[in-house]
Amino acid sequence: MMQPLPGFRDFLPEPLPFPDSWSADLRRHIFESWRASARRYGFREYDGPPLEPLELFTLKSGEEIVRQLFNFRDKGDRDVSLRPEMTPTLARLVATVERHYRKPIKWFAIPQLFRYEKHQKGRLREHFQFNADIFGEADPAADAELVALLIDSLRGLGLTADDFVIRLSSRRAWQGFQERLGVDAARAYDFYQAVDKLDREKEAVTDAKFREFGTSLDAVRQFIAAAEPTAELRRVLDDLASRGMSEFVRIDYGIIRGLAYYTGVVFEAFDRKGEFRAIAGGGRYDQLVKLVSGGKVDLPGLGFGMGDVVLTELLKSRGLLPALGGVLDDYVIIEDETLRGAALAIVQRLRSGGRRVDFSLTAMKGDKQFKRALELGASRTIRVERGADGKTVLKVRDLVTRAEHEVSPEVVV
Amino acid sequence: MMQPLPGFRDFLPEPLPFPDSWSADLRRHIFESWRASARRYGFREYDGPPLEPLELFTLKSGEEIVRQLFNFRDKGDRDVSLRPEMTPTLARLVATVERHYRKPIKWFAIPQLFRYEKHQKGRLREHFQFNADIFGEADPAADAELVALLIDSLRGLGLTADDFVIRLSSRRAWQGFQERLGVDAARAYDFYQAVDKLDREKEAVTDAKFREFGTSLDAVRQFIAAAEPTAELRRVLDDLASRGMSEFVRIDYGIIRGLAYYTGVVFEAFDRKGEFRAIAGGGRYDQLVKLVSGGKVDLPGLGFGMGDVVLTELLKSRGLLPALGGVLDDYVIIEDETLRGAALAIVQRLRSGGRRVDFSLTAMKGDKQFKRALELGASRTIRVERGADGKTVLKVRDLVTRAEHEVSPEVVV
Repeated sequence: MMQPLPGFRDFLPEPLPFPDSWSADLRRHIFESWRASARRYGFREYDGPPLEPLELFTLKSGEEIVRQLFNFRDKGDRDVSLRPEMTPTLARLVATVERHYRKPIKWFAIPQLFRYEKHQKGRLREHFQFNADIFGEADPAADAELVALLIDSLRGLGLTADDFVIRLSSRRAWQGFQERLGVDAARAYDFYQAVDKLDREKEAVTDAKFREFGTSLDAVRQFIAAAEPTAELRRVLDDLASRGMSEFVRIDYGIIRGLAYYTGVVFEAFDRKGEFRAIAGGGRYDQLVKLVSGGKVDLPGLGFGMGDVVLTELLKSRGLLPALGGVLDDYVIIEDETLRGAALAIVQRLRSGGRRVDFSLTAMKGDKQFKRALELGASRTIRVERGADGKTVLKVRDLVTRAEHEVSPEVVV
Repeated sequence: MMQPLPGFRDFLPEPLPFPDSWSADLRRHIFESWRASARRYGFREYDGPPLEPLELFTLKSGEEIVRQLFNFRDKGDRDVSLRPEMTPTLARLVATVERHYRKPIKWFAIPQLFRYEKHQKGRLREHFQFNADIFGEADPAADAELVALLIDSLRGLGLTADDFVIRLSSRRAWQGFQERLGVDAARAYDFYQAVDKLDREKEAVTDAKFREFGTSLDAVRQFIAAAEPTAELRRVLDDLASRGMSEFVRIDYGIIRGLAYYTGVVFEAFDRKGEFRAIAGGGRYDQLVKLVSGGKVDLPGLGFGMGDVVLTELLKSRGLLPALGGVLDDYVIIEDETLRGAALAIVQRLRSGGRRVDFSLTAMKGDKQFKRALELGASRTIRVERGADGKTVLKVRDLVTRAEHEVSPEVVV
C-alpha cells in the first residue's frame, strides 16, 4: 500500500489509529492557540506561496542552503524551491507593500516549511511554524514586545515558567567582543558559527578555531559566563519585568543563532529540563529588507519562529494535550423509517441553528444508533417518534444527566 | 524587486494595498465558514502532505496529467509532485486507516492544490479547496448528505437560491444511455469527455465524435433535455426535499465531470447568472479506494471540492464580502513616559484576560496615539495617567459612544 514520502506527515482525526499518528485535531488546537495569542498582541495574519523563486532563498543564505532544499526547475525553466523558512518571503512582501501599512507592522503566519534533511528516525522534512515579526521599529521595546508574545504563546498552551525559559543574547554583545579582539567583520559569521557549535564539537577543535581569531575557548566561556547585559538587553529585561515576565527569561550569550542575517537581540526558547531541541528562536535582522529589496527599502525588522513538532513533543511530555473528543452536539435517532423525512427536516433545523448534528444515513437498530451517539461524544440524542395523535414528537436526552424530555419538532433548538 | 512566481498569490492583512491583492483576512473568513459548515454536518478534519509520490497521481489519472503537474525528482531520486487534487491522498489515507474508524467516515480538509496551467491572465497555479468526502456508505442517502453540506457551505457565506444552483447528474444514467448504444465499456471515458466538452467544441466536431459511438449530437441533446432522474437521483431529490432544499438543485445531464473515476451521482455548483466557472464539483467514486490500495480495501466513496478563487469572485460580485476591520479591543495610550512600566503591566493584564491590545512601542503624542487607535478599529482607548494622589489611574473611553470613565489599574478588564 502506498505511503507518504519519508519525512512527511498525514494528519488524522481523533481517536488516532496508531501511537505515532499525527492528530489533525491537535494541530488545529495548536494553530488556534497561536492565532489567539498573536491577535491579543495586535498581530495581523499574512501568507505567501509555499513555492518561491530559488534565488529568494540563496540571496540571504548563500548557495550552500541549496543542498537542503526541495528545489527544482519548473516547466517554464524557472529555478524554484519549496520554502525552507518564511522570513525571505516576508521580507519580500514587506519590501513591496510596507508603504501602505502604518508602522510598526506586526504580522504573523503559520506556514508549512520544507527541508531536505538527511532522513533520520523521527527527523521530519516538513513542519508548521508560527512566525511573528515586527517591522519599522528599531527600539528595544519592539524586541520586548516580540519576546512577550513568544512567552504568552507558550503560556497559552498551558506551559509555565517551570516548563520553559527564553535565553536572550545579542549579536551586538558579540560584536563588542570581536572588536576588542580585532576580528575582521567579514569573518564575523565564521566566528558566530564557532560559538553556535560550542557544545557540539570537541573542545580542542573549538579552541583551535577561536585561536585563529586571536582568542581561546576559555576566554569565550568566561565572556558567556559573565553575561553582562548590553544596554539594549537591559531595556528588554526592564520592559519584560514591567509585564511580570522576568521569570521566563535569562541572559545567555551561548545563544548566537546559526543564520547570517541577525543584527541585534537574538533568543531561543528551551524546555527547562533540557530534554528537547529549541522550541523557538528568533531575533533582530535590521538589514534583511534592504538586502531583499536591492537597497530600495530600509526597514528594521525582527521576528521568531516556533515549530509544531518539538512543541507537540513537549506538550505531550508535560501532559498538556487537550481532550479532543466531543465533536458533536446532537445525534438524531430514527427507529421508524417512515419518519426519516421528518427526521431530515429536524436535522436541517438544528444544523441551521448552528448545532453539530449527525444521524444514521441508513436504517439501523435504535440501540446501535444510541451507541454511535456515545462514541461520537454527542451531548444529546434526539429520538424521532410518532406520538399517540399521529404527530411527530422528539425525545431529547441529555447524555450527561441522562434526563429525557419531549418537545415538538417546531420548537426544538 | 522580487515577485512571487507567476500564478502564485500573497495574502495580505486588510486594508489591502492594491485592488488585485488577496486578503488573508477574507481567506480566514472563508476557511472558518467552511469549517463551521463541515462540523455542523459531523465531518472531521484531516490533512496530508502537499508533496506526494508522483505515482499517486498518475495511478488514477494516467500519465497525461503529468504535463499539468509541479513534479520533479527529489534529492533521493524519487519522482514527486505537489498535489493537484486531494482525492488520491485521501484515498491512500482511508485505505490505510479505515479499519480504525467507524463507518461512514465523514472527513474534510482545506488543502492548497497546485497545477502547472499555461499562464493566462487571472489564471492561478494554486488555489485552496474545501474537500468533503464520505466513505463506507453506498446508499444515495450519503449523496444527499454530501450535496446538503455543499448547499449549506454556500449558504453559510451568505449565498442564497437566487445566487447558485447545484446541477445533479449521474454516471449511471449515462451508462444506461451507452448500454443502449452498445458503447464498449473501455471507451466510456472517451464518451464522457465528448459530453463534457459539448458546449465548448464546434457542433460538427462533437457530432462526428458521437457518431463514432453510434449516436448523434441531437440524440445526446434530447437525452439531456429529457433529464429523467434515475432511481438514485430520485432518492437524492426526495431526501433534499425533506430538508427543504429543493430550490437549490436540479437535474442536468450536461454535467458529467471530466475525471475518469466517478461511478454514480455527479454534480457541480454554478452561479445562477452563469458569470463564473463552476463553484464546486464532485460525485461518487466507488472504485477509487480499491484502485489506490491495490485491491486490498474496497470501500465506496464520494466527495466534492470547492475552490477559493471562483467563490471569492462570486462573493465579491454579490456584495457578500464581510467587513474585516476591528482587529483590536483596546489601545493603551501612554502620554507620560514615566508611566510606561505601569502601562506595560496594564497591557499584560488585559491581554491575559483575552483582550486584543496594542500600544505605541515608543514615545508619541497623545493625539497621534488616539488616531492610531481609531485606525486600528479599537473598541476602547485606555489612557494611563497619574492621579492627584500620585497613583496611576486609567481613563477608559468607549470609541463608539465616546463616553469615558475612570478605573484603577487593579480592576480594569
